[in-house]
Amino acid sequence: MDRILLGHGSGGKMMNQLIRGYFVPEFGLKSLNDSAVLEEINHGKIAFTTDSYVVSPIFFPGGNIGELAVYGTVNDLSMVGAKPLYVSIGLILEEGFPLEDLKRILSSAANAAKKSGVKIVAGDTKVVDKGKADGIFINTSGVGIIEKGIDISPSRVMIGDKVILSGPIGNHGISIIAERNGISFNPPILSDTAPLNGLVSEMLKTTKDIHAMRDPTRGGLASALKEIAVDSGYCIFIEEEFITVPSGVRGACELLGFDPLYVANEGILVAIVKPDVAESLINTMRRHPLGKEARLIGYVQEAPAKLVLMKTAIGGTRIVEMLSGDQLPRIC
Amino acid sequence: MDRILLGHGSGGKMMNQLIRGYFVPEFGLKSLNDSAVLEEINHGKIAFTTDSYVVSPIFFPGGNIGELAVYGTVNDLSMVGAKPLYVSIGLILEEGFPLEDLKRILSSAANAAKKSGVKIVAGDTKVVDKGKADGIFINTSGVGIIEKGIDISPSRVMIGDKVILSGPIGNHGISIIAERNGISFNPPILSDTAPLNGLVSEMLKTTKDIHAMRDPTRGGLASALKEIAVDSGYCIFIEEEFITVPSGVRGACELLGFDPLYVANEGILVAIVKPDVAESLINTMRRHPLGKEARLIGYVQEAPAKLVLMKTAIGGTRIVEMLSGDQLPRIC
Repeated sequence: MDRILLGHGSGGKMMNQLIRGYFVPEFGLKSLNDSAVLEEINHGKIAFTTDSYVVSPIFFPGGNIGELAVYGTVNDLSMVGAKPLYVSIGLILEEGFPLEDLKRILSSAANAAKKSGVKIVAGDTKVVDKGKADGIFINTSGVGIIEKGIDISPSRVMIGDKVILSGPIGNHGISIIAERNGISFNPPILSDTAPLNGLVSEMLKTTKDIHAMRDPTRGGLASALKEIAVDSGYCIFIEEEFITVPSGVRGACELLGFDPLYVANEGILVAIVKPDVAESLINTMRRHPLGKEARLIGYVQEAPAKLVLMKTAIGGTRIVEMLSGDQLPRIC
Repeated sequence: MDRILLGHGSGGKMMNQLIRGYFVPEFGLKSLNDSAVLEEINHGKIAFTTDSYVVSPIFFPGGNIGELAVYGTVNDLSMVGAKPLYVSIGLILEEGFPLEDLKRILSSAANAAKKSGVKIVAGDTKVVDKGKADGIFINTSGVGIIEKGIDISPSRVMIGDKVILSGPIGNHGISIIAERNGISFNPPILSDTAPLNGLVSEMLKTTKDIHAMRDPTRGGLASALKEIAVDSGYCIFIEEEFITVPSGVRGACELLGFDPLYVANEGILVAIVKPDVAESLINTMRRHPLGKEARLIGYVQEAPAKLVLMKTAIGGTRIVEMLSGDQLPRIC
């Protein structure tokens, strides 16, 4: 038995063997009940999120779908200021999927959970017939706790707020597209997939005046900022020269005709903060491995409402729209 | 635009339009943040569960994948005695999937949430290229609260406990397999898909002495009981004559070579309860629309450990094993 069979998803003996053989040891699951019972949470608000991962290829420079799925959900919880605590993993497997790949992916997900300090507490496995999926799709959902006094939401964004970006853009998207097309770079461009909860925790120790926060995944930095602009009703003004685009990403984007502002990231965040805390926050971020290149990239102004404007490197000003169409399908 | 395109999953404008056009109105989502922030939960334990739905066909007699996904997660939470509160919906769509079908499915999921008294608070949409999925897969995860004093877990099962089944078996599985194979029955066999939280709530008002509970989905009643037997370490003894198999299901099983004990259900439960509360519990259940046919079907005995034994209708005793292999793939 070295491949997934339809019987692995049947709810019977084979599924049981798969769960007890792969899930229980990797994730240290204590029970196989229908629902996980979590420790008592008796303070703060609960944050809850879900994401499915259909990235292709499933193994890419710097990561794989397993860790990506865990970090993605950890990051979604972190973006509302929650401390991520519990994660579920739902697998949809294609008949014939190699068990060795499954083991590698689950192992990587387990390591990612450990690294992020979250527990994988619930799981589910479905198998579909050959040709009806693409190897493996993973859904992760997560539960976290938001301590009292933390309220991160675009409705809190104010005129004069500063925009901070934690690191360089474009690495994840370009690593995927390169792998997909058999292109290699020297030095290689690696996905930035990483858990942002540690960085956010340090940031929240410095200030509670973070008004909005996003990890710019699908749709890239442009789409994340545009969403905040629309939801807040204000204009976000950024300057291109302050946004770090690694030279490899820049070259790849030129070669492939992409705009790095729209390329997916999996290990950076953009925060809109009260102006007088921006400097100390950047200092805090720079002391964390994932925020070493944190920079102020812009500010919030009243008008034109709901737009993102960017002062370009050559001195003009351009309107930054949301990604339109399908620049990079199946990037996460 | 009447079909799903890859761009609908890109994180950009098209996805935004899809979410604001379909998700927000159906589910009344208040924010499109990365995570939902739930109301304060400051008493009891949290239950958390996940399930992916890959049922084929997506529309079947008595239901569709949308309501099935919501009820399935509501039921998983109910089986540990939790009151289901919040549900997330993660969609994986195949390029070319008809938007009309999507609308019908989301609408049905929204109705199911309303009927179950849960809020859909988080969502995610991914699109994969044509031929890399099968129309639509749905993941639902759920969060619920377990009131103090409720502790439902196979480890509480004791010798002498009674086994109660809430209704007839086999309807869901047979409705799917019939639809899949173009067989029709007269009267039609409809899926029993339904939310069990109302029934469970009534049961818990009658007694806290429910030791274990399962909704026998994939793998059927046999696999659910076998799991409890294994986890509790005792023997579950049931009598075939007390298990209601609708005549249509029985006929279809004979025709197709299935054993109704292994056929999936989506709207019944089996409970292992303290002997002295069994009768009053059955009376409570029979007053609820989903428990009208509740019956005592057996009891727990010490040995042979971890086995399910069934006294057959013709008087013999048979060992009931877990489902082996793939009797009915993609049943949920």
